[in-house]
Amino acid sequence: MKQIEKQFLQYVKKMTGYREAIGLMYWDLRTGAPKKGVEQRSEVIGMLSEEVFRMSTSEEMAAFIAKLSPKAVYEQLDDVTKKTLDECKKEYERNKKIPADEYKEFVVLCSKAESVWEEAKAAADFARFRPYLEQIIEFQRRFISYWGYEGHPYNTLLDQYEPGMTVDLLDELFSRLRERIVPLVHAISAASDKPDTSFLFAPFPKEKQRAFLLELLKELGYDFGKGRLDETVHPFAIGLNPNDVRITTRYDERDFRTAVFGTIHECGHALYEQHISEALVGTPLASGASMGIHESQSLFFENMIGRHYAFWKRHYPRLQQYAPTQFADVSLDAFYRAINEAKPSLIRIEADELTYPLHIIIRYEIEKQLFAGELEAIDLPDVWNEKYEQYLGIRPHNDAVGVLQDVHWSGGSFGYFPSYALGYMYAAQFKQAMEKELDVAGLLEEGNIAPIREWLTVHIHQFGKMKKPLELVLDATGETLKADYLIQYLEEKYKALYRL
Amino acid sequence: MKQIEKQFLQYVKKMTGYREAIGLMYWDLRTGAPKKGVEQRSEVIGMLSEEVFRMSTSEEMAAFIAKLSPKAVYEQLDDVTKKTLDECKKEYERNKKIPADEYKEFVVLCSKAESVWEEAKAAADFARFRPYLEQIIEFQRRFISYWGYEGHPYNTLLDQYEPGMTVDLLDELFSRLRERIVPLVHAISAASDKPDTSFLFAPFPKEKQRAFLLELLKELGYDFGKGRLDETVHPFAIGLNPNDVRITTRYDERDFRTAVFGTIHECGHALYEQHISEALVGTPLASGASMGIHESQSLFFENMIGRHYAFWKRHYPRLQQYAPTQFADVSLDAFYRAINEAKPSLIRIEADELTYPLHIIIRYEIEKQLFAGELEAIDLPDVWNEKYEQYLGIRPHNDAVGVLQDVHWSGGSFGYFPSYALGYMYAAQFKQAMEKELDVAGLLEEGNIAPIREWLTVHIHQFGKMKKPLELVLDATGETLKADYLIQYLEEKYKALYRL
Repeated sequence: MKQIEKQFLQYVKKMTGYREAIGLMYWDLRTGAPKKGVEQRSEVIGMLSEEVFRMSTSEEMAAFIAKLSPKAVYEQLDDVTKKTLDECKKEYERNKKIPADEYKEFVVLCSKAESVWEEAKAAADFARFRPYLEQIIEFQRRFISYWGYEGHPYNTLLDQYEPGMTVDLLDELFSRLRERIVPLVHAISAASDKPDTSFLFAPFPKEKQRAFLLELLKELGYDFGKGRLDETVHPFAIGLNPNDVRITTRYDERDFRTAVFGTIHECGHALYEQHISEALVGTPLASGASMGIHESQSLFFENMIGRHYAFWKRHYPRLQQYAPTQFADVSLDAFYRAINEAKPSLIRIEADELTYPLHIIIRYEIEKQLFAGELEAIDLPDVWNEKYEQYLGIRPHNDAVGVLQDVHWSGGSFGYFPSYALGYMYAAQFKQAMEKELDVAGLLEEGNIAPIREWLTVHIHQFGKMKKPLELVLDATGETLKADYLIQYLEEKYKALYRL
Repeated sequence: MKQIEKQFLQYVKKMTGYREAIGLMYWDLRTGAPKKGVEQRSEVIGMLSEEVFRMSTSEEMAAFIAKLSPKAVYEQLDDVTKKTLDECKKEYERNKKIPADEYKEFVVLCSKAESVWEEAKAAADFARFRPYLEQIIEFQRRFISYWGYEGHPYNTLLDQYEPGMTVDLLDELFSRLRERIVPLVHAISAASDKPDTSFLFAPFPKEKQRAFLLELLKELGYDFGKGRLDETVHPFAIGLNPNDVRITTRYDERDFRTAVFGTIHECGHALYEQHISEALVGTPLASGASMGIHESQSLFFENMIGRHYAFWKRHYPRLQQYAPTQFADVSLDAFYRAINEAKPSLIRIEADELTYPLHIIIRYEIEKQLFAGELEAIDLPDVWNEKYEQYLGIRPHNDAVGVLQDVHWSGGSFGYFPSYALGYMYAAQFKQAMEKELDVAGLLEEGNIAPIREWLTVHIHQFGKMKKPLELVLDATGETLKADYLIQYLEEKYKALYRL
């Protein structure tokens, strides 16, 4: 049996290795691969992806699962092998349950749908995208029936991104959050004392921004021996393996916030993967526990560190040196208020930390109803606009800035959005637990990030996918997931900022 | 049968795709991959290489060869499939003839030998490396017996890098070359009117060099839509596929020649691969015909274009603008003489175009004797030093600058060296043929490189591996390979330069 276990781990290591090669090709395509080579490179990515898919559903994999799963055998495995087997089994079952032809049809549909979505968005014409969306929803509903589900049909979609998450729990968390955040957002919209943000948009040369960022990344503890910083149109972090976790950024010379907060965000993702235990390298466990937990780490760094007063107490003088004219007459307090401006807006990806969760709650409510059969594609624009008016107090004037704004649905990614808001909740709950042990504000002011990183590594990062999200939260904070910590954080911060 | 042909080409395409992924990982390792990720990345490279090797020797491959090789079937195949099959068959047979265990042992030996070689070289201590070299030679001799050979045992080693090349032909070419070059080198050593090179070593900032190079590459026709220029310690060109051919360079701020001539050299390699016919993409034919033909293209660009008087007549004024102080008092003639300085030296990779072939001939003569059983490892330092004294008029004062200088033997690469000198001969013969149709000097002075590139594409580049080296030479120049064109080129150029 030891022999089979060893073969299984070798087999998985190969799949992981192939995924790493695919990851590097993606990174390369985005950071400067020659344009004319893209087509051929995409074919190579396709070949390797097909091979990984084949391996994940092969007879060999079936045999490993059959031989290692019986209780008497399973209980003899070490923890890493157990969890690796769990992951492989889950993937095997998900992939096997959908007829291959049907899946292929779905992939073709999505790739067509994405380009139609682009056109429809450009033309602000939902009707053009609707027939595709209808088909995609149809496919997803059928997939749900293949996969099966407990409780709500949407649960099985949620589980893809946030293992263990359910509609019951999200309803409770999101309704509580909505009830408290909506009035706060309305109050802020009506507040008379709003921050002056005019000075944010002065020219700030790219090289200066980059120099500032490199210092910042070092202080935050991003290990350049395990990573690098490049430039892309759409910034991202990618963990090829825990010893090679790369980040990218985008520079806007008329708004330094793009690069500064974007980079701190990606740094949060990257630190997570850089700190994953070496013991998990070569298994599918060497990555984030879930989309939401990953997002909690980027948001923790971007907002709870990067938009903290104490953090800028330390770094603002240095930023002023890099852009002396821009910030000459701006006090630290004025700067702090400006970078924490909150106001209702139509576009999710431009939203601030206070209003962002409401964008997600709207999408969650819509998706849930879609898969309960309570809504159809044709209903979406109206429902969308109604909810924006109700929660954020503003109504999209067309579908390009409304229901058509996100790419996700055109790719069949339903169940993904909630992870973003969960990221905020996880982050706030982690912060609250961390503050029982650490004086976070004091450490930020000293520029002593090590204890914070250490706390995150010990309680979260090292485990990779060894723990499920809710298990991580419980173990790290001693409590089940609650919306209250996020509510408390946002209320305290924004009431003070807006002098309410 | 059409079905089998299609499956065969699919199979080969997958191997080619995997090789492309491996190529990108190599490129990435050399151009800035995070250091701590190197170990895991090397494992991934190993996995994919193993898979490609497995595919090249699999039962599936054997079946394709068995089914497509019979004359009646083979003759129905199109040319690309025929040559693809030939390549696969050759690789299959080479790989199959060596017992797997023995090959593994050899690979382990080489990787150990390389690090021992490094130490031995640092200590100038041949005795330390000798036991490893002896074993490597033993392995190679055994491999030759497995592979079999016609004529001289060394022929089968030559054939790996230069298909169709033989000791008979090399003896004839190299002895003729040696007889004419040795006296010329001696005459130049004794010449009284030597170029002044002192101005070459003034500081020349990297950014200025890079800006100059980017303009130069564009004029030479390097397609940045199919490539990119990066920085590495050891410059190289790598063709991932004909639409993605990358080059790298190294900047020495106290010697601009490193980057300028190095980049033109790599550009020559890259243009070759960028011009390979689209029809060959996805097959093993989409690369250079041989090591020597590849080198002929880089040397043609580096020396016959890049060290041509007419070329600098056009570009020297621009170079002067980038480094006005350095070249203020240097005439074009003085510049031209300086960049074409020739003098006997001990180190192959630092040699000029006149003396370089002699370094190769020495290695060739030694390797040939080794595999004829006329020499043993223990004899090498003395033989080496004798030959350097005889051909170049200088004797290595230790083995670090003598027999230990090159990495090749520690990796078991015997038969590789001759390709370098063949590259010079091919290049000179191509140039002579080209000049029957084109006024090369005139075109260089105009900066009109297109007709030169076109000539090379039509006669050489497009074919990739569709033709064997000697076939390419015959078709492109109407003659079999001769040493005379190189001799004539070198004599004319260096007699004039040294006013002999």
